Amino acid sequence: MKATIRLTNSNIVYILDQTKLPFKEQYIIAKGSKRIIDAIEKLSIRGAPAIGVAGGFASYLALKESKNSNLEKIFQIISSKLDLIESARPTAVNLSWSVNRFRNILKLNRSKKIDFRHLLSLFRKEALKIYEEEKKVSLKLSSLGSKLIKNNDKIITHCNTGSLATTGPGTALGAIKFANKIRKGLRVFATETRPLLQGSRLTIWECQKNNIDCTLISDSMVSHIIKEEKINMIVVGADRIASNGDTANKIGTYQLAIAAKFHKIPFFVVAPISTFDFSCRNGLLIEIEERDGKELLSINNKIVSKANNVRNPAFDVTPRKLITGIITEKGIIYSPNANKIKRFKNRYS
Amino acid sequence: MKATIRLTNSNIVYILDQTKLPFKEQYIIAKGSKRIIDAIEKLSIRGAPAIGVAGGFASYLALKESKNSNLEKIFQIISSKLDLIESARPTAVNLSWSVNRFRNILKLNRSKKIDFRHLLSLFRKEALKIYEEEKKVSLKLSSLGSKLIKNNDKIITHCNTGSLATTGPGTALGAIKFANKIRKGLRVFATETRPLLQGSRLTIWECQKNNIDCTLISDSMVSHIIKEEKINMIVVGADRIASNGDTANKIGTYQLAIAAKFHKIPFFVVAPISTFDFSCRNGLLIEIEERDGKELLSINNKIVSKANNVRNPAFDVTPRKLITGIITEKGIIYSPNANKIKRFKNRYS
Repeated sequence: MKATIRLTNSNIVYILDQTKLPFKEQYIIAKGSKRIIDAIEKLSIRGAPAIGVAGGFASYLALKESKNSNLEKIFQIISSKLDLIESARPTAVNLSWSVNRFRNILKLNRSKKIDFRHLLSLFRKEALKIYEEEKKVSLKLSSLGSKLIKNNDKIITHCNTGSLATTGPGTALGAIKFANKIRKGLRVFATETRPLLQGSRLTIWECQKNNIDCTLISDSMVSHIIKEEKINMIVVGADRIASNGDTANKIGTYQLAIAAKFHKIPFFVVAPISTFDFSCRNGLLIEIEERDGKELLSINNKIVSKANNVRNPAFDVTPRKLITGIITEKGIIYSPNANKIKRFKNRYS
Repeated sequence: MKATIRLTNSNIVYILDQTKLPFKEQYIIAKGSKRIIDAIEKLSIRGAPAIGVAGGFASYLALKESKNSNLEKIFQIISSKLDLIESARPTAVNLSWSVNRFRNILKLNRSKKIDFRHLLSLFRKEALKIYEEEKKVSLKLSSLGSKLIKNNDKIITHCNTGSLATTGPGTALGAIKFANKIRKGLRVFATETRPLLQGSRLTIWECQKNNIDCTLISDSMVSHIIKEEKINMIVVGADRIASNGDTANKIGTYQLAIAAKFHKIPFFVVAPISTFDFSCRNGLLIEIEERDGKELLSINNKIVSKANNVRNPAFDVTPRKLITGIITEKGIIYSPNANKIKRFKNRYS
């Protein structure tokens, strides 16, 4: 499969434009940080880990385009550009996490008489490191998650959490992909994921490329399908996990978790440690991005409704008590709570 | 508001084509039963009570077009045509209920030497009677249901259950309309109702025509909105209610009922007695119509997904235990069960 995002030797960032999938496999050619920010805002690239990587590449290009003879001036310019990158999308913590790594480089070098080229090489190295780390983490997550899946399992997943959302095989969908190689008779039911149809457009496309038996359902069918098909588990990704385990993810996830609890089936979150926001006490404190209502009023530029008032939160928060376990690259946190996550943090992060 | 369906003196049936709403208010002009069956199958007319009325008009036109000198032959032809009408859509019981009224007329007159014109006039009278009855029942339901709604209530509703689904103000949406006249500060949140968007196309349109404060949400947002907006109740219609209270309604209803239970808010079903199937013991026995998967793959003739496998059940069944009460034209059945519904049946039907 083609890379979701990559940085070339000549410092061009290629971004597979996910708004065009599955009909066109077309790359955005970004030569500056603004173009990457625009791609993040418009969801040409999405998925918390992939956004983190895009933020890293944007940070590097932002420094590159800030060339100035005055080093103090450069620090000022790049700081405000990093703020801009961080604010492209508010909910996925990976963007802040990524940008903060560049802020740390600045902090460590501010008092030193570092020259621009050296600083730039540090940024490039850090951006590529984030890329490589996320790839390794995605592989570990997928491998670990796949062990929970048994022969003939029927699994519901939401939104897209595969290669398109990461730089590796994925998070939740990565686990499914790995399981599909070692288990027999696996069946996946993918929600279409309104309003932007990441499920019907992207997850179905990835499943087909990976020979996974996959059936499309609408978001409203989840509970009916759990009951009728005797679904074994629900697995999803995450955009931000609070330090008590409350998890922000694509709108509709909360409802899936409630349906899982009602039907007494496990509900797993698969996410890298970079998706934890250890500074956030609980889910109530997570900012939920409200996107333009037009996303519900038209589909593929065709108007479908004349509604004057529309709510369009892009995420919701699933309380920790509805989560069976959070699968990270360092192990599974079952029945997550603040104490368990604190111990986990002290050990691994 | 224009009539959803009507029969003219010159025996033409006008059907407001709901597949064209809210963009065009265009009528289908049906001069024969086949055109009505086609309109039912394609959801140009939908909503259990309205389908019952359409089935009545189709039964009348079916007899009209069966003119034959041999009365025995006429009985044969019309019987098979009634079967065709009944099978246009399987889940909404109102269609069977309506067609059965014409079967009864045939039964009562088969042995008599009734002439064709007399039989035809009996059919016409019955068809118009069903129309008028459903109108009166819709008014009663709306009035009774509105009393459960208080000032400043925030209500979630699903699919379309208004004038378009009945020959009166509606069922669930009828109750909301009546409440909006007698209560202050009412707010309605309408699910878009995938795949055919009856919520975003039809319910929003009806709410706007009736000056109801209405906000569009996606089906996946329901639980998040219940929590965030502190929703007071969910009200929906029904397509078939089993004799124990299990209720088939638009796909997604079951999930709404689970969300209501989780958040401890009331979940009401508003439906005429004609929607009860007293011969059906429980929800497991209700046939769920599986519609063409293409309904999820394209929107307004534009393809949105390349999925090979699609599930598209048009309805699901909400178990009686999730239902706070069923509001009928003869009163409210709280916490419905087989005994209560049996007593209700003996008293009213």
